[in-house]
Amino acid sequence: MTGKKTGAGLRGQSAGETALCTVGQEGTGLTYRGYDVRDLAAQCEFEEVAYLLLYGELPDRAGLDAYKRRLSGMRELPPAVKAVLEQIPRDAHPMDVMRTGCSMLGTLETETDFAQQADVADRLLAVFPSIITYWYRYSHDGVRIDTDSDEDSIGGHFLYLLRGERPNELHKDVMHVSLILYAEHEFNASTFAARVCASTLSDMHSAITGAIGTLRGPLHGGANEAAMEMLEQWSSPEEARRELSGMLERKEKVMGFGHAVYTEVDPRNAVIKEWSRELAEEVGDDTLFPVSEAVEQMMWDEKGLFANADFYHASAYRFMGIPTKLFTPIFVMSRHSGWAAHVMEQRAKNRIIRPSADYTGHTLRTVPPIDRR
Amino acid sequence: MTGKKTGAGLRGQSAGETALCTVGQEGTGLTYRGYDVRDLAAQCEFEEVAYLLLYGELPDRAGLDAYKRRLSGMRELPPAVKAVLEQIPRDAHPMDVMRTGCSMLGTLETETDFAQQADVADRLLAVFPSIITYWYRYSHDGVRIDTDSDEDSIGGHFLYLLRGERPNELHKDVMHVSLILYAEHEFNASTFAARVCASTLSDMHSAITGAIGTLRGPLHGGANEAAMEMLEQWSSPEEARRELSGMLERKEKVMGFGHAVYTEVDPRNAVIKEWSRELAEEVGDDTLFPVSEAVEQMMWDEKGLFANADFYHASAYRFMGIPTKLFTPIFVMSRHSGWAAHVMEQRAKNRIIRPSADYTGHTLRTVPPIDRR
Repeated sequence: MTGKKTGAGLRGQSAGETALCTVGQEGTGLTYRGYDVRDLAAQCEFEEVAYLLLYGELPDRAGLDAYKRRLSGMRELPPAVKAVLEQIPRDAHPMDVMRTGCSMLGTLETETDFAQQADVADRLLAVFPSIITYWYRYSHDGVRIDTDSDEDSIGGHFLYLLRGERPNELHKDVMHVSLILYAEHEFNASTFAARVCASTLSDMHSAITGAIGTLRGPLHGGANEAAMEMLEQWSSPEEARRELSGMLERKEKVMGFGHAVYTEVDPRNAVIKEWSRELAEEVGDDTLFPVSEAVEQMMWDEKGLFANADFYHASAYRFMGIPTKLFTPIFVMSRHSGWAAHVMEQRAKNRIIRPSADYTGHTLRTVPPIDRR
Repeated sequence: MTGKKTGAGLRGQSAGETALCTVGQEGTGLTYRGYDVRDLAAQCEFEEVAYLLLYGELPDRAGLDAYKRRLSGMRELPPAVKAVLEQIPRDAHPMDVMRTGCSMLGTLETETDFAQQADVADRLLAVFPSIITYWYRYSHDGVRIDTDSDEDSIGGHFLYLLRGERPNELHKDVMHVSLILYAEHEFNASTFAARVCASTLSDMHSAITGAIGTLRGPLHGGANEAAMEMLEQWSSPEEARRELSGMLERKEKVMGFGHAVYTEVDPRNAVIKEWSRELAEEVGDDTLFPVSEAVEQMMWDEKGLFANADFYHASAYRFMGIPTKLFTPIFVMSRHSGWAAHVMEQRAKNRIIRPSADYTGHTLRTVPPIDRR
């Protein structure tokens, strides 16, 4: 941080305390409540990690089973939310669907007391897959799906509603890993937006609605979608190297590389890359994964830039048949666990977030009568 | 600012630059683009001030007329938004209605390029009165109102739709003043939330939706509603003094007094107080205004606390027959002009807003197998 940058984006300035996460600390990379995210991704289901973030500790077997049953019982959409989703056109931005679905649910199931915060947080965690798939299937396929399923995980439930058929074990495992990797990331912009909202003692739906709108921005969510759109243009590693070389010469931005906080490596990349490799083998891919590896290698060799968490998410999601436009809504399903945990943390030790600004405008002047302007 | 408070609510820390507003600077109080808010409230219509904030300078007569015609032509609600508003129950929080209406409109009239930002900002400015009154009249009175009117001002349009009859000149004047006083206030929490959202290069509807949810919190918007709920319990200045005395002894919070930034006086109070007095005379009030004055005097004498902008807004709105639950939505109609101007300003010189946090959590630990937790 240089003096010159003070005030610009608050980079390096502390905006509060958190016990939820460390990012980029030496030797650990990314931790949730003290656990390395790679350790969590290797050993846990997503519901364990959501529970960890929201309630403070990892559940035991009975606790996890109870939590999954609780979430499974909260997946139904109220008729009024379905009616709203049916009004949203097919060509709408899917993040606008998530934002509106969350906001609408808040008009019906309003958090009127902070004692309800865990119920509201769990309800949203359970219902986001229903919101996005109900809209998607209605607007794209003309069907009103049943938003209940007996899939016992959030990721499995999402895949089942999206495709109308049961996902296999590999796909459910990848969803667990993916949702764990995206669950939490300290004071990133969407989380910070949620905390600013919560700091006025507003309700959970408002904070999460604001976070969704913030994640929607191309500088934040959406990098895996952009990476996908780039990668799918190329049909071989040779073509990828040739076209990427042109992009670099033209100084075009290549999505899925580098990071605002990490400087040497994104600890999440190696994890999702290995799962993407396994999915590639499952579907017999001989194009997208080799193309991805060629791009990763060339970006490192030519630019010294590492692939971040988003890069191999693109191919992993594609191998599972997920439409590109639903990549960022999956991010919401995951990050909601971190957002809601931050809202609760902000409330527990609140001060309204109200910074100052450096004034660069006009000095004091007198309003001229309208006929003499 | 003391060292100890660093990080708590970012108080006194600069989070960026603005040319829109100064708050609490010596001798000026509150300025919008260099003009004292009292000067603007005395001489301008709200549409002039919105134009000033959004476009940089006060319009001349022809410019103002053109701007008002432009806004008047943007008041109609799309059928899908009406359908959504009809799904929101009567007992919903009115700020949830505003938030959902704004978000839903964003699914239909999505800002796909920043070149559209002025159109989106003006559209929202024009349509917020239609959103809240359409929902209010449908859910409370069972009627589907026509959201067009030939009232030439935003405030007049709002009153006309709310009551179904033409407002008089005094009421239209008070709406201009009220909307001017609430239009802009530097990096307050809702505006800052809008800027955080905008800093990811998200769309205008997302930023404004997030700001509405942030203003909803009782530490931010809502103070005039809370003041009203207190004042309407008391039927004389004597009763007010007696009851207030009890509140102060019990150390209860009295809404509508003091301010996070102003330390000696809220420059907006004297302005709205005189208009509230005029409205009291119009309706022949001999209770609410005297009660309000008694409370203001006693808070100053006993606690050294000054009435802020919200305090006399309570009685002013009540004299105009506005239901208490619509007070904060009026704040949205006004503050949107400031929010949207801040979004545009953030975009013009953007850096993603991504602060750091002080970590207070667990040290690095290993994930125990689930059966050994």
